[in-house]
Amino acid sequence: MPIPAHLSLAIPDNDLPRIVIVGGGFGGLNLAKSLRKVKAQIVLLDKNNFHTFQPLLYQVATAGLEPDSIAGPLRKSFEGNPNYYFRMVKVTGVDSENNEVVTTIGNLSYDNLVLANGSVTNYFNKKDFRPKVLPLKRIVHALDVRSHILQNFEQAVMTQDKGEFEKMMNIVVVGGGPTGVEVSGALAELRKHILPKDYPDLDFSQMKIYLIEGSGRLLNGMSEFAGKEALNYIRKMGIEVQLNTFVEDYDGDTVTLNNGTIETATVVWSAGVRGNVVEGLNESSVEKSRILVDDYNLVKGTNNVFAIGDVAMMQNEEYPQGHPMVAAVAMQQGWHLAKNFKNRFAGKEMVPFKYFNKGSMATIGKNKAVVDMPNGMHFKGFFAWLIWMFVHIMYLIGFRNKLITLNNWIWSYFTYDKGTRLIIRTFNRKFLRRPAGVNKI
Amino acid sequence: MPIPAHLSLAIPDNDLPRIVIVGGGFGGLNLAKSLRKVKAQIVLLDKNNFHTFQPLLYQVATAGLEPDSIAGPLRKSFEGNPNYYFRMVKVTGVDSENNEVVTTIGNLSYDNLVLANGSVTNYFNKKDFRPKVLPLKRIVHALDVRSHILQNFEQAVMTQDKGEFEKMMNIVVVGGGPTGVEVSGALAELRKHILPKDYPDLDFSQMKIYLIEGSGRLLNGMSEFAGKEALNYIRKMGIEVQLNTFVEDYDGDTVTLNNGTIETATVVWSAGVRGNVVEGLNESSVEKSRILVDDYNLVKGTNNVFAIGDVAMMQNEEYPQGHPMVAAVAMQQGWHLAKNFKNRFAGKEMVPFKYFNKGSMATIGKNKAVVDMPNGMHFKGFFAWLIWMFVHIMYLIGFRNKLITLNNWIWSYFTYDKGTRLIIRTFNRKFLRRPAGVNKI
Repeated sequence: MPIPAHLSLAIPDNDLPRIVIVGGGFGGLNLAKSLRKVKAQIVLLDKNNFHTFQPLLYQVATAGLEPDSIAGPLRKSFEGNPNYYFRMVKVTGVDSENNEVVTTIGNLSYDNLVLANGSVTNYFNKKDFRPKVLPLKRIVHALDVRSHILQNFEQAVMTQDKGEFEKMMNIVVVGGGPTGVEVSGALAELRKHILPKDYPDLDFSQMKIYLIEGSGRLLNGMSEFAGKEALNYIRKMGIEVQLNTFVEDYDGDTVTLNNGTIETATVVWSAGVRGNVVEGLNESSVEKSRILVDDYNLVKGTNNVFAIGDVAMMQNEEYPQGHPMVAAVAMQQGWHLAKNFKNRFAGKEMVPFKYFNKGSMATIGKNKAVVDMPNGMHFKGFFAWLIWMFVHIMYLIGFRNKLITLNNWIWSYFTYDKGTRLIIRTFNRKFLRRPAGVNKI
Repeated sequence: MPIPAHLSLAIPDNDLPRIVIVGGGFGGLNLAKSLRKVKAQIVLLDKNNFHTFQPLLYQVATAGLEPDSIAGPLRKSFEGNPNYYFRMVKVTGVDSENNEVVTTIGNLSYDNLVLANGSVTNYFNKKDFRPKVLPLKRIVHALDVRSHILQNFEQAVMTQDKGEFEKMMNIVVVGGGPTGVEVSGALAELRKHILPKDYPDLDFSQMKIYLIEGSGRLLNGMSEFAGKEALNYIRKMGIEVQLNTFVEDYDGDTVTLNNGTIETATVVWSAGVRGNVVEGLNESSVEKSRILVDDYNLVKGTNNVFAIGDVAMMQNEEYPQGHPMVAAVAMQQGWHLAKNFKNRFAGKEMVPFKYFNKGSMATIGKNKAVVDMPNGMHFKGFFAWLIWMFVHIMYLIGFRNKLITLNNWIWSYFTYDKGTRLIIRTFNRKFLRRPAGVNKI
């Protein structure tokens, strides 16, 4: 579609060098914040007006937290900085020859460009069932998962047919990474503590939660200890884990696996992500859906285009396949690149990036978590959960969000009551096979 | 559309008399809660799974509160009561000859029926512009108003055309009742304290807020004092009030009034409500879109169908045109009808309803409110605002909601910062004339 003549990105030209940052996630936001004292014009582009604390999306999906607890408005981060500009647009490409970034409402020239637009859900080319599964990568996805599951229970109450009932009650979570483990764990807790009270006329021993993982273990990015303990926890919570299992098809009713089928109206797709690579980059600078960068996060073959976070692949001896696609790497690359910009503008040498692995962790329901420390130590159980809780609250941006989240968690901890379980649909997903009688909200 | 064979309301038949309540608003919810000790089967039907505290919808619309602060899950209200049933369905009619209520997934027989399905937005038969204006009667409406206004500011930043810019900045609020006064007051505060910080590149002296009222005064349901003081407050806040003015048309760009035009992309429609009367009632029992009831809330011409709250019109000497369509009446009728059910089941006489007017109030931004006391006294200013605040928090159902709301309000009071201003669209409103470049979220 043509761009209307009256619209333009409207960034004033001045004498300052312009740094355009694409994406307000962990990388882009922390880079932008750290550039405050740099004499440059900072332009942040994002298709949302808020930053999302993605590690807690599963809490929104399972009615534990509301969106405002895990999201912060991007504009607020830059209040009082006259050289900062935020524009809510989608970036579609790069024209590196002309030093322009391509957006849905026109091009914008840059002196330096930073691609920090993270990752998107990886459907592994399964185009057929893509519109039928529920991804969990954005706030609207999380709200949609929550409403979808609760609507199915409301419908299950009124369903006489055994086959249909089964579909409404069963939930299949695809992917045994942190998201899959955390979302299935939270669903198991809902099933145990909350749902039987909310729906006294449903028998929740008939609700089955399946966790499907293609490899032979859970939490592939973590230690064997963590994977094994997570599997123990998950199995004890009554989740049916199927390892070495692939989803071959899903028609909205039946999940076809390589070794069987499952009847369900709900497939949460947390099978993986891929780099959100925009168009226009040299083919040789893209590998496995990530952008190849050198030790300074400079995109190969360019001298003023950088990439940080999930979308960037920095290959070195320690990480021959690039760094893990996690928040910690993105944040550190954001902070580090800010320093390198300062060096660059001061005519100094840039410093190579080195990832400081502070460890990794995943939680499986209340009181239970697994933690890998960088020194090779591992934790599990309540102490690990306390660490998980502390780290997540500390990193949630903004004092106010922390307070509300803590408030909600303390409440939830002592009362076993989770959030408000409102059914508020944000997507009008066309695949929803709601029978005539059941309302769309 | 036909109802699928496998769906039914699935309410078990037992020896208890069945009371079916339509609507979980102030009337229906308080009735249901008060029937706990009555030996009856209680069935609550609502198209949402939550109760909405409607007096604070305008706060969600203006980014002051999130939905979970003003909504509570209906199922939670009935936990542990084996004779309570909730069904999330839309009720479309009554078949009073066969003692059946008609829903989108089939009929349900009743011994006693209570219509408590409140009111809906009144468009006064202006069908043409109905899909172009933004109502403010449900949670999804409020989220939509908020996202719509914020998206327009994001677009205004990038708009070069003066006419288009004006449309993005201007907001027209139609209706000078409590909702219209409260929403325009909250918008004026956003304009003064929040938006200039969020959007340093927009000149908010160019943002005009219009409040359009058909009669010669504001707050028609309240005292002349309240109307006059509200007008003073509103004008001091820089809102352009136009009394004795009607909206004749709106094409999405231009509001046509009886005395002029206004260019705007945002029309908030708070012009009034009408009773949500379902089909199947005797024509003689409906007047002015409300159901005529006697002093016991019994629908005229029936002996087991009741109506309470907004949808009911009980005409007596004090209220020849029925009671005001406000929460207080609905709540009192709910409580009172519960008592009358107890009397009825005990073979005692029912007691006529008498409205205990505790006064009425409206707030106009921070620190300012008008209060009419039942004894004829009036307040305004900070003290009135404190009363308003206290009463609203006390009535918000559920301890948890109160805490979060209070938390938000205290924060907002001391920091002048309101909520999180996330753009999360819930309706895909087709009329949105977003140009190619501007994302749908």
